[in-house]
Amino acid sequence: MKVSTLTVKGTFDILPNDMTLREWMKNTVIEIYKQGGFQQIETPSIENLELLTKSDGGENLNLLFKILKRGEKLDLEKENLTDDDLCDLGLRYDLTLPLSRFYTNNREELPNPFKAIQTGWVWRAEKPQKGRFRQFIQCDIDIIGEKSDIAEIELITTTAKALQALSFDNFTVKINDRRLLKSLIISVGFEEEAIESICITLDKMDKVGKEGVQKELLAKGYDEAKVVDLLIALDDLKTLDGEVLEKYNVEEEVLQSLKKVIEVVEKQSKGLYNIEFDVTLIRGMGYYTGQIFEVVSNDLGSSIAGGGRYDKMIGRFQKEDVPAVGFSIGFERIFTILKERNFAIPNTTTRIALLFDSNEDVNAVLEQANKLREKGNIVSIFPKNKKFSKQINNLKKQLFDAYGICNEGEVSEIVSLKEE
Amino acid sequence: MKVSTLTVKGTFDILPNDMTLREWMKNTVIEIYKQGGFQQIETPSIENLELLTKSDGGENLNLLFKILKRGEKLDLEKENLTDDDLCDLGLRYDLTLPLSRFYTNNREELPNPFKAIQTGWVWRAEKPQKGRFRQFIQCDIDIIGEKSDIAEIELITTTAKALQALSFDNFTVKINDRRLLKSLIISVGFEEEAIESICITLDKMDKVGKEGVQKELLAKGYDEAKVVDLLIALDDLKTLDGEVLEKYNVEEEVLQSLKKVIEVVEKQSKGLYNIEFDVTLIRGMGYYTGQIFEVVSNDLGSSIAGGGRYDKMIGRFQKEDVPAVGFSIGFERIFTILKERNFAIPNTTTRIALLFDSNEDVNAVLEQANKLREKGNIVSIFPKNKKFSKQINNLKKQLFDAYGICNEGEVSEIVSLKEE
Repeated sequence: MKVSTLTVKGTFDILPNDMTLREWMKNTVIEIYKQGGFQQIETPSIENLELLTKSDGGENLNLLFKILKRGEKLDLEKENLTDDDLCDLGLRYDLTLPLSRFYTNNREELPNPFKAIQTGWVWRAEKPQKGRFRQFIQCDIDIIGEKSDIAEIELITTTAKALQALSFDNFTVKINDRRLLKSLIISVGFEEEAIESICITLDKMDKVGKEGVQKELLAKGYDEAKVVDLLIALDDLKTLDGEVLEKYNVEEEVLQSLKKVIEVVEKQSKGLYNIEFDVTLIRGMGYYTGQIFEVVSNDLGSSIAGGGRYDKMIGRFQKEDVPAVGFSIGFERIFTILKERNFAIPNTTTRIALLFDSNEDVNAVLEQANKLREKGNIVSIFPKNKKFSKQINNLKKQLFDAYGICNEGEVSEIVSLKEE
Repeated sequence: MKVSTLTVKGTFDILPNDMTLREWMKNTVIEIYKQGGFQQIETPSIENLELLTKSDGGENLNLLFKILKRGEKLDLEKENLTDDDLCDLGLRYDLTLPLSRFYTNNREELPNPFKAIQTGWVWRAEKPQKGRFRQFIQCDIDIIGEKSDIAEIELITTTAKALQALSFDNFTVKINDRRLLKSLIISVGFEEEAIESICITLDKMDKVGKEGVQKELLAKGYDEAKVVDLLIALDDLKTLDGEVLEKYNVEEEVLQSLKKVIEVVEKQSKGLYNIEFDVTLIRGMGYYTGQIFEVVSNDLGSSIAGGGRYDKMIGRFQKEDVPAVGFSIGFERIFTILKERNFAIPNTTTRIALLFDSNEDVNAVLEQANKLREKGNIVSIFPKNKKFSKQINNLKKQLFDAYGICNEGEVSEIVSLKEE
């Protein structure tokens, strides 16, 4: 019996046309990042399980693909086997944790501050559904070692530039600060320990609305008066009003930094995109410690990039904390959007099919192909079929731009295959 | 306790300078491949274990990284647990098997013949040692659906062109044919079943010499007279001598095709590299069915690329066999060689550090940085340190080419950091 040739559930094959678009996206973004002084690095896809599990208590742990121990290390005879007995490695579920490990492992050879570009596959054992994959590309820039908000400004302006290069123009950068949220939650009377759980619920605001959030917070057992106060506070904070913020014990430094970042980014945007404070922006990850941001496409209403400051992550791996900020582009989502738009990649090379008769000298065909290639064309050689018009139709289907026929060592004419 | 931040044994972090060289290598090679009409595709890193294990009886099975089943699918209570009970997925160990699956899965949407480019990570649970990794890049081109030796010619000339673009000039393409080896082994009296085992031993010729090969074949229990005859036959076949080949029942078609490929490639090489028949060329993989090739660097004596025809692989996944040939560049080996040579990447962009005083307007700094970027430079902005000469030394260490100082919104001069 033949084995199944389908891809693993939640993963996908990438065919030539899709690959062309994805490579164009990747190269476009990396080019912008590099211009901004960011440098590409890469970490292994597999990490020690200990690193993946002990460094994050979050939901990602349930999404780990774990790798079986090999050889003598695997003891199937042991009683009460657990995953930990069986596995020693796992596939990375994001690029931020590996970057933090990388930084600690290599910091003596890295510049300070270090501006990193990472694009690569990550794996999550999620329930596959439309637009959610088990293997997908992440595309991140991070600045490590810069505590001032110049890091936030660089990340936001560079990411915006990358999105513009990907032909996105109508978008809004939303910005908030975890410290502001914390002050707010504490000032209405909640305990510090409740913050994470409350944030998880608040994060659902755009899906379930204010009533939904209230219902969930009450269901979690929080005091009704405090919940109501919190929701009022959120309503109160539509803008960065210093007086209102003071009421909720938000530090002046937090306010001033948000104002500065918004002001600079606004100016840099030259009116081509927006930036706005949004107190309801939460961002799921537990590791954020300062400003957080998200880019929303105004046309589609969906998030196309997100990030924030995580000053306490690297300190999990070494003695000292090192300030860090990251911004991640939603590569797979942007790919889907561009594909749905039938986006045409600018300036592609002409693809020519060079046909030859069976009695033609192969050397001559290759010489002619090389001549056309040296002129910057993509050239594929094919034996000429007896059913010529069928072959031409096939070439059109394969998106060839033109064809030529090599006859007695000469190509008389390159004929366009484009419909007029 | 802090967890270890080392990479998983046999894997490696890629730092910015190495990444620059690797990306240059990848882009250079892909550019050449694309000019030749090859198209990039990609397959998932994870495949169903059934596909990986049932499709290859070879040594690769011992090198599999297997992935633990998740959720309800994992039953640790079962008695006499085996790997198969525990695991359902595995990491790919090469790009050829996934390509064959891919072709079967997507053949209706693919051109015929299909010329594929694949670069990507593969994983093998080998004992790590110098130059042998557990996660490494493979870089392949394949032609699927072309039974004539035009496929071999295209793969060899395209690969040679890629190697030249990677600055390799002094190399030899060695070529042989599995069918020729088969005729030879059978004609001296061995059974068909012995061929694979004999080939595995013959493959060690360059390591253990003729005596070593003889010793191993005798140790495997083969008849001494036949072994001696085989070694004589190999000696006999230093060149493609039609009379000698006839003596060993090598088919005329096999001889003619080898001659043709050598003749055409020789002409295409324009004397810049060599191609030669080598009867001792075996290539490890069991799946080869026709011509096999390997590129050897004459300076280093080491193999830098290899491939061959595998007409029976796709037939494992679908009703009909489909002819296929592939050629793989030894990406990691070439990277190591270029690095050892202190290879300088041609035409790199100027990297400028733009320094600014703490009282400088951030907007002005960003404007100046963008101006320089628009001129094609890579620009990184940094606050100016009090210890200026120390900062300049650091920038030199970080391989910046130049620096500028933004003062009151102006950059007066870009100062070179290159040693004269």
